[in-house]
Amino acid sequence: MKIETKKAKFRQPLYLESGRIIEPWEIVYETYGELNSKKDNVILITHALSGSHHVAGKYSENDKKAGGGDDFIGPQKAVDTDKFFVICTNVIGSCFGSTSPLHPIQRGGTKRYGLKFPVVTIKDMVKAQKILLDSLGIHHLRAIIGGSMGGMQALRFAVEYPKFADDIIPLATTWQTRAGVIAVNKIMKDAILADPNFKNGEYDVKEIKEKGLRGLEIARMIGFLGYLSPTTFDKKFGREYVKTDGMFELFGRFQVESYLEYNGANFPKWFDPLSYIYILKAISLFDLSRGYLNLAEALNRVEDRLHLISFKGDTLFYPEEMRKIKEEMDKLGKFCNYFEIDSNYGHDSFLVEVDKFEHIVKDILRS
Amino acid sequence: MKIETKKAKFRQPLYLESGRIIEPWEIVYETYGELNSKKDNVILITHALSGSHHVAGKYSENDKKAGGGDDFIGPQKAVDTDKFFVICTNVIGSCFGSTSPLHPIQRGGTKRYGLKFPVVTIKDMVKAQKILLDSLGIHHLRAIIGGSMGGMQALRFAVEYPKFADDIIPLATTWQTRAGVIAVNKIMKDAILADPNFKNGEYDVKEIKEKGLRGLEIARMIGFLGYLSPTTFDKKFGREYVKTDGMFELFGRFQVESYLEYNGANFPKWFDPLSYIYILKAISLFDLSRGYLNLAEALNRVEDRLHLISFKGDTLFYPEEMRKIKEEMDKLGKFCNYFEIDSNYGHDSFLVEVDKFEHIVKDILRS
Repeated sequence: MKIETKKAKFRQPLYLESGRIIEPWEIVYETYGELNSKKDNVILITHALSGSHHVAGKYSENDKKAGGGDDFIGPQKAVDTDKFFVICTNVIGSCFGSTSPLHPIQRGGTKRYGLKFPVVTIKDMVKAQKILLDSLGIHHLRAIIGGSMGGMQALRFAVEYPKFADDIIPLATTWQTRAGVIAVNKIMKDAILADPNFKNGEYDVKEIKEKGLRGLEIARMIGFLGYLSPTTFDKKFGREYVKTDGMFELFGRFQVESYLEYNGANFPKWFDPLSYIYILKAISLFDLSRGYLNLAEALNRVEDRLHLISFKGDTLFYPEEMRKIKEEMDKLGKFCNYFEIDSNYGHDSFLVEVDKFEHIVKDILRS
Repeated sequence: MKIETKKAKFRQPLYLESGRIIEPWEIVYETYGELNSKKDNVILITHALSGSHHVAGKYSENDKKAGGGDDFIGPQKAVDTDKFFVICTNVIGSCFGSTSPLHPIQRGGTKRYGLKFPVVTIKDMVKAQKILLDSLGIHHLRAIIGGSMGGMQALRFAVEYPKFADDIIPLATTWQTRAGVIAVNKIMKDAILADPNFKNGEYDVKEIKEKGLRGLEIARMIGFLGYLSPTTFDKKFGREYVKTDGMFELFGRFQVESYLEYNGANFPKWFDPLSYIYILKAISLFDLSRGYLNLAEALNRVEDRLHLISFKGDTLFYPEEMRKIKEEMDKLGKFCNYFEIDSNYGHDSFLVEVDKFEHIVKDILRS
């Protein structure tokens, strides 16, 4: 599979939903497979909170891990790169190369945005991607596919750019972030800000990658509470104790604690705390109906075929939230499929239980 | 209603489940109503994580707030203090006067236990209460009633001291803390430890009460994620924004964020971080079957009437967990009632929706 990683730079201002602008700005993206001459075999993958443009394949044989959606995207896979030209862009605000709080405020300057970076919304992320695609001469997509925050982008594309894609496939997502999730995001943000080593965003990036950042580690652990369902926690860990720890030691650990620690401690090595704060904000602010009278008015703009995939065990974005979209689309007489996957794995199902829904995606892309 | 607050001091060692001892130790307790001459009108209330011995009434007319269970306990209330002598003890480890990490290691010394305090379990808490009751000449209880961690104590009483009470009424609790809850407890603990002002437990108590402790505030906010159900979050806050905050300001707040901040910021004023860590540990370690072959063997010891009250919206201790106790008790042919209250309020229902279950408690205490 041909993988190419590129960076596109734009001199014209990016006008944000907040009224602020970013100028200049850039966006990192990766492509898989070959663009055909008609440019009509393009599938856009939209990534989730901690994702990046690297969504499939390995850069070299020595690479330990493939891109995050590799089970799903590749030659002969559900999103078949022998057939489709797949593109995934790192969202604005994220720390994998696109314009973010880590970028300099002034072109060529050394002072970075930090907490002065403007708030970015899902709508802004999508707008940036649309400008990129236009610049590549891609004016129509075969499909847009994304889970969680990626699903929010897919839905936003459907509303803001009607007829831009044939099929929209949002997974494990919602039309409007609920108060309970806003609460989780808020506490994760606060955990980062509370860490004196975060230095209000003026930290040394290299130092944090090496030494970690406890506040970000805690935020990541809080995140896991929503990624796994209570049932998964039971099945995966139960009440197993770490073999070398004493049950009656204050710092003795259950296996689940050790698992959280491991994942928490790794996180600052590959993800940035400022980006995390900004992307959490984008997720909290997400409301597909913002800018419209209500959800129905927003959805009434949709001209693409909408295929919603939700997961029974998802305790972050409950199936009822996507069912609400289906109901509204039905009332409007618009094309909408709704699939509810039987899973107790929780929110992460869209990443780890690909075998449960890949046939749906294959069918959609075949037709 | 006659309220008395007392402290009992014990010179003999308290042998803990961990194999460690506390010596001397003391326990603060409060009583409501009058003990009759037969001493057979006693009801023990067992408190939850952040509770105390002050569970009903006001100390004076100027008191702003009554004890935490005041809707439920008092003259002519479900637990009728005109009829019963109600007693509630502050659990060992808690910060309201019973022996805790804040106590001196050496009698008369100034150096406190801090993180050297032994791990205390629910079984230890119950044992201390039993010794107290014995010392008061109370050898039988009319009932033991408690929610959440209070329910764990009630269940532990039933298993360890058969025939000690007529009726056991645990609410919104479990027989074994699940991995998902252990995970939450772990992250709360970590948030406290991560705060440099916690100083590994060597902080100045007065200073923290005055200036707060961000780590404890974050822990408290994490706690709220489990106390309210997702539905309650929606109903209570929805996506309302704080009137004076801008939606596109990075630190602009939704109402739910403001609510969490308020409750978080207040917490260090009235609760201690060391106690919080120790009580979380006790909750994580709780497993009614520990010390026995399995749950059935533990429950086979029960000779009291067991009345379980669970809440449909409880996402901390799911109804299925108490239903498991009911099933085992039925198999053993032992007396057990199971009530599942229709509520979407979440775990906190046992504190705030008293009107939904007080009739059950009244009926039990009448018979």
